[in-house]
Amino acid sequence: RFGYFGHEKPEEVQLMFCLVSGCLTDGQTIVSGSKGEMVHMNTKDLTGLRILRREGVEVVLLVSNEDMSKTLSDKLAKRTGCDVMQVGAEPLDDVQKWRKEKGLDWKLVAFMGFDEPDVECLKLAGLSAAPQDAPAVAVNAAKYTCHARGGQGAVREFVEHILLLKKKAMAQVEQDRIHRKHF
Amino acid sequence: RFGYFGHEKPEEVQLMFCLVSGCLTDGQTIVSGSKGEMVHMNTKDLTGLRILRREGVEVVLLVSNEDMSKTLSDKLAKRTGCDVMQVGAEPLDDVQKWRKEKGLDWKLVAFMGFDEPDVECLKLAGLSAAPQDAPAVAVNAAKYTCHARGGQGAVREFVEHILLLKKKAMAQVEQDRIHRKHF
Amino acid sequence: RFGYFGHEKPEEVQLMFCLVSGCLTDGQTIVSGSKGEMVHMNTKDLTGLRILRREGVEVVLLVSNEDMSKTLSDKLAKRTGCDVMQVGAEPLDDVQKWRKEKGLDWKLVAFMGFDEPDVECLKLAGLSAAPQDAPAVAVNAAKYTCHARGGQGAVREFVEHILLLKKKAMAQVEQDRIHRKHF
Amino acid sequence: RFGYFGHEKPEEVQLMFCLVSGCLTDGQTIVSGSKGEMVHMNTKDLTGLRILRREGVEVVLLVSNEDMSKTLSDKLAKRTGCDVMQVGAEPLDDVQKWRKEKGLDWKLVAFMGFDEPDVECLKLAGLSAAPQDAPAVAVNAAKYTCHARGGQGAVREFVEHILLLKKKAMAQVEQDRIHRKHF
Repeated sequence: RFGYFGHEKPEEVQLMFCLVSGCLTDGQTIVSGSKGEMVHMNTKDLTGLRILRREGVEVVLLVSNEDMSKTLSDKLAKRTGCDVMQVGAEPLDDVQKWRKEKGLDWKLVAFMGFDEPDVECLKLAGLSAAPQDAPAVAVNAAKYTCHARGGQGAVREFVEHILLLKKKAMAQVEQDRIHRKHF
Repeated sequence: RFGYFGHEKPEEVQLMFCLVSGCLTDGQTIVSGSKGEMVHMNTKDLTGLRILRREGVEVVLLVSNEDMSKTLSDKLAKRTGCDVMQVGAEPLDDVQKWRKEKGLDWKLVAFMGFDEPDVECLKLAGLSAAPQDAPAVAVNAAKYTCHARGGQGAVREFVEHILLLKKKAMAQVEQDRIHRKHF
Repeated sequence: RFGYFGHEKPEEVQLMFCLVSGCLTDGQTIVSGSKGEMVHMNTKDLTGLRILRREGVEVVLLVSNEDMSKTLSDKLAKRTGCDVMQVGAEPLDDVQKWRKEKGLDWKLVAFMGFDEPDVECLKLAGLSAAPQDAPAVAVNAAKYTCHARGGQGAVREFVEHILLLKKKAMAQVEQDRIHRKHF
Repeated sequence: RFGYFGHEKPEEVQLMFCLVSGCLTDGQTIVSGSKGEMVHMNTKDLTGLRILRREGVEVVLLVSNEDMSKTLSDKLAKRTGCDVMQVGAEPLDDVQKWRKEKGLDWKLVAFMGFDEPDVECLKLAGLSAAPQDAPAVAVNAAKYTCHARGGQGAVREFVEHILLLKKKAMAQVEQDRIHRKHF
C-alpha cells in the first residue's frame, strides 16, 4: 500500500438506542390484577450495557407508553444508569429528535429493535440488530441478527459486536498513523 | 379458464376467538398466597392481534372463570383492546352464542385453542390452530399446528397465517373481476 | 389360549401422589422480599389432574414444609381440587401413613417425584415417574421417565400413561369375561 | 507401586463461593414498580447445596449490592441455610478476605461465577465453574463449564462434580493407608 495517504476516519458508534420490550426483555408483558408492574432483564445484558457505556457509548433505552408506567421507567433508568425514553407508535420520530440534538449522523448510531414499528430505524442506523426470535419484518430490516433470543443475551451479543467493530476501527486508525509517519 | 363466469366469493375470516391460557400465555397459572394475580403475554403476540384488528378482524379473548378474576380480565381487555369473554367448562356454548349474535357462519370464524375442552370449536371453525406444545387432542383437532409454543409467538404465527389467506382471497377477488370484465 | 379360565384382576391405579416442586412446577422457588409467595403451574398439567380425578383416581399433592406456607398450600388445594399434604424430610413416612389409611397396596399407587428424598417412594409405587430434567438419582429410581420437563407437561404425560394402562386393564377384564362366557 | 511411601494428602474442597445472579438464578433481574423484590431459584440446585453442606463443605452465596436489598439477602440466607455475602465491583477483595479468615488455601476453595468481574476468582480457585450460558470471558476462565444453564441445574451439576472428586480423593487416602500397612 505504498503511496497511501488519505483514509476516511472509520466510523465509530457513539450512541445506541435499544428497545426494552423484546430486546432487553423476552417480550413478556405482565398484566396484573394488583398494582404490581415489573420487567425482567438478564444480568448478562445489563453487564453488556455497562461495558458499552464504559467504552464511551451513550445508551438510550426505548419503552412504549403503553408498556410501562412513568414510575417503572424511572426505576429502570436508575437501575441501568441509562436514559429511558418513552416512544409513541412511531419510534422513528422520537429517535430522530434525540439524534439531531446530539448532532450525530445515523452512521454513528446503533439501533436494536424487535418488531414492525422499528423497521425504519433498523434500516437507517449505521449498525442495527434484532434478537433471534424477532418477527421476520424486523429481522429482515436489521443489519445483524443475533443468535441469542431477546432477554437471553441478545443485547450482550450486539454490544460485543459493536465493541469488536470499535476495536477494529481503532486498530485501523493506529495503522494509518504509522503509515503517515513512515511514508 | 375461458368460459369462467361464476366463482363463490372466497371466505374471509371476520372474527377470531383466541384462548388466553396456553395460546396467548405459556399456560402457566400462578397460585399466589397474596392477592396478586397476573398473566404474562408476549409483545410479539400482542402486536399480532393489533395488526389483525387493524385489518378489520374482530378479536375475542377467551378466559375460563377459574383462571382469572373479573378485575384481571378487565385489565386484559383494556391492555389488548380486545373483548374478553369468560367461558365455562364448555367453551362451545359461549362461542356459539357470540357467533350467532354477529350472524357469522363458522367458515368466517378463526379459533385458537389449547386443550380438550376446545376440540369442538377447533373442528367447527373455518380456520383453527393450536400451539406446538398443546396436548395431542387439540393438535389433532386443529386445522393448523403452530411451530411456536404458546406465549412465545403462536398467536402471532396464526395471525400471519390468517392475513396471508386474506391476501390470497383478495387477490382472487381482484382476479375474478378482471376475468368478468374481459370475457 | 384355549382352556384359559383364571386371571388375576389387572391392577389399576387408585391413588396418585404427586410432588409439587419440580413435577407440577419447574422447580423454581421464589424468595421474595415482600410477603408475596407464589407457585407457577401449567394449565396442561392441571387439566391432566382433572381428567385423572374424573376417572376415579384420588390425587394427593405433596409439598415440603419449607417450600410453602399453609396459606399457599390451602390456595393450591382449592385451585386444583386435590388434597395437599405437607411432607417432611422423609416423604415416605407421610405417604406410607396415607396409603395405609386408605387400605391400598403399593401396586395400586402411582407416585411422581423429583429428587433424592423421593427415591424410596419411586421404587415402591406400582407406577412411578420423574420429569425429564430430574436429577439422576430420581430418574434411575422411577419406572417411567417423562419426555417433558417439570412444569411443562410432565404431570400430564404421566397422567396419560396411567390412563392408557387403565384402559388396557379394562379391555383385559372385558376380554376375560368373554372368555369365561364362551368356554 | 512397590516402595511407595509418601503421597501428598489429596486436596479436598472445604469452602464454596457461589454467585447468585446467573449461577443460582437464570440471571433474570426484576425491576418492579411496586416494592416487591424477588429471586427465583431451582429446587434442584438448592437440594445440591444442602447435600454439599451435609458433606461438610461451607457454602457462601455472593450477591452484588445493586442486585439485592438487605431484606432479600437475609431471606435468602434463611431459606438456603448458607451465608450470604454482599460483594462490590471487585468480588475478589471480599472473597479473599473471607478465605484468609478461614485460613484456607485457594486449592481448597471452589468458586462458581458468571461474568467479567468473576474472572480472577475463577482462575485462582482450586475448582471453578461457569454455567453453560455464561459470557465467554467467564467460561474461558473457569476450570469446568457446566452443561446446564444458570438457574436450571448448573449449581447442582458443579456440586456433583465436587462430590465426585471428594469421593475419589477419599478412595485415594484409603488406598494409601492400605499401601502403608502392607509394605
